[in-house]
Amino acid sequence: MKVFLVFAHPEPQSLTASLRDVATHELMALGHEVNVSDLYAMGWKSNIDRPDFPMLAPDERMRVAYASGSAFLTGTLTDDVKAEQAKLLWADAVILQFPLWWYSMPAILKGWVERVYSAGFAYGVGVSNECRGGDRYGEGVFAGKRAMLVVSVGGRQENYSSRGICGPIDDVLFPINHGILYYPGFDVLPPFIAWETDRMDAPGFEAASSALRDRMQSLETTEPIPYRSLNGGDYEFPGQTLRPELGAADAFGFRLHVRE
Amino acid sequence: MKVFLVFAHPEPQSLTASLRDVATHELMALGHEVNVSDLYAMGWKSNIDRPDFPMLAPDERMRVAYASGSAFLTGTLTDDVKAEQAKLLWADAVILQFPLWWYSMPAILKGWVERVYSAGFAYGVGVSNECRGGDRYGEGVFAGKRAMLVVSVGGRQENYSSRGICGPIDDVLFPINHGILYYPGFDVLPPFIAWETDRMDAPGFEAASSALRDRMQSLETTEPIPYRSLNGGDYEFPGQTLRPELGAADAFGFRLHVRE
Repeated sequence: MKVFLVFAHPEPQSLTASLRDVATHELMALGHEVNVSDLYAMGWKSNIDRPDFPMLAPDERMRVAYASGSAFLTGTLTDDVKAEQAKLLWADAVILQFPLWWYSMPAILKGWVERVYSAGFAYGVGVSNECRGGDRYGEGVFAGKRAMLVVSVGGRQENYSSRGICGPIDDVLFPINHGILYYPGFDVLPPFIAWETDRMDAPGFEAASSALRDRMQSLETTEPIPYRSLNGGDYEFPGQTLRPELGAADAFGFRLHVRE
Repeated sequence: MKVFLVFAHPEPQSLTASLRDVATHELMALGHEVNVSDLYAMGWKSNIDRPDFPMLAPDERMRVAYASGSAFLTGTLTDDVKAEQAKLLWADAVILQFPLWWYSMPAILKGWVERVYSAGFAYGVGVSNECRGGDRYGEGVFAGKRAMLVVSVGGRQENYSSRGICGPIDDVLFPINHGILYYPGFDVLPPFIAWETDRMDAPGFEAASSALRDRMQSLETTEPIPYRSLNGGDYEFPGQTLRPELGAADAFGFRLHVRE
C-alpha cells in the first residue's frame, strides 16, 4: 500500500514524533511505501488568505470557496497545495497524526485542511438536488481510500469516557473523522489514541508502540467506522436529516450517524 | 462593559466582516468600550513553535506545555502573546467571531488559542488532587467574565439540527464553548449563528443584523449555558466523570455536561 502520513508536532524529540517513527518503520517493514508531510519541518503556511489565489484581482472581494474552486479548476493553486493534493491522490491510506490541543488538531494541521481541501476537489463536487447532497459523506475524491487518526492525548482515558468531563473521545474527534475525513469519501478507521502522554514512562511507551504497530499491521483490514452515507437512503432531503425511523429511539447527536 | 472581539476572516468585504461591524457599532452605541483583534489584518502567527519560547536552549527538547508555563512565569512570552493576554484580562466580555470551516474555527484563530492560552495562565492552574481537578471548567483566570461565539455557517440550519448530517450545532461547537471558553472560567453565552451565509440576500442580512444587535443589547443579561462545574460536586475523581445519579438516564455525550 501507499501510505501518506501528515504529521503535526513542532518537536522532533517529542513522544508524538517517536510514535510517528514507530508507525513509519513498521509500515516500511511491512513493505508499504510511506510518504510523510512533517508540517512544522516543512514550514507549512497555515493561514488561507489572498496569496493563496494569485489570480484574484487586487481589489476583488475574496470569497474563499469561490476563489479556491476557481484556482483549482484553472490549475493556479500554489505549488505547496498542489504537492499535498498529489500526495493525497497517490495514497491508498492517509494518516493524520497530531497531539490533541484544545480538543482539536493543531492550527498548522487545520490550516493544511483549509488550504489543501480545495473547492472542486474535496468539497463542492457532484450533483446537489432534491434527492442528493453532492458527492460527500461517503462519496467524493477519496472514495476507496482509507484514513485514520493517530492522536496523542495528555489527559486520562477516563476523562474522555462516556461520562467524562471532556466528552467521549469519539464525539471529540467526530468533527475530524466525519467532517474532514468521511466528508470527501475516505473510509475512516477507528483512531489510535496514546493516552496520558505527558507522563508516559518507558513501559508505557513500549505498550503504546506495540499497540500502534498492531494497528499499522491491520491498516488494510481494520473495519471502518460504519458512518451512514448521505446519499445512500438514510437521510431526507433537502434538510439532510436522518430518517425518523432510523437510529436508536433515545439516540441523539453525533452517534446517530453511525449505523448500529 | 469592556468588550474584546477576536475576529478571524481574511476578507474585509466578507459577510462575516459586515456582521462584525454591526456588532461593534451596536456595542459602541450602547456605551461599551470595544477592542478588536482582527487576526488576519494583524498578520497573526498561527503556529506555536520554538520562536515562541526565546529562553529555550537551542538543543533543548521543547515540551510545549512546560515551555509555555515557564515563559509565562518568567515574563518571556513574545510581545504579541502578552498583548492578547492583556486584552483578555481587560475585558468583561469576549467575543470570538469566525466562519465555521470544516466544523471548527479557522486555523488562525485556533493558533491564537494555542499561543495566547499559556500554561499557568489559562490551564495548569489550581490544585489537582483526589477531589479537585485544578481551576478549570467553571473556575480559572476568566471567572466572572462572559464569552460568546458569533459564527457564520454556509450550511442550512436543518443540516445542524438534532438529526442533521453535520451533527447538532451545539455539539459541533461544544469543544470550543466548553473546551476553550468554559475551561478557563468564562460564563459562556449561547452562540449567535448566521446561517446560509453563502447565499444570504439583503433582507437576510438585515434579519441577521437585527438579531445580532439584539444579542449585543443583551450581552450583560443573557443567561449563560448551564455547564456543570468540574469541582462543584457533580463529578467523581480522579476519573472526572459525571456522578452516576446525574444526567437524564438516556443521555450520552456532550449534553450530559449541561445541567437540566
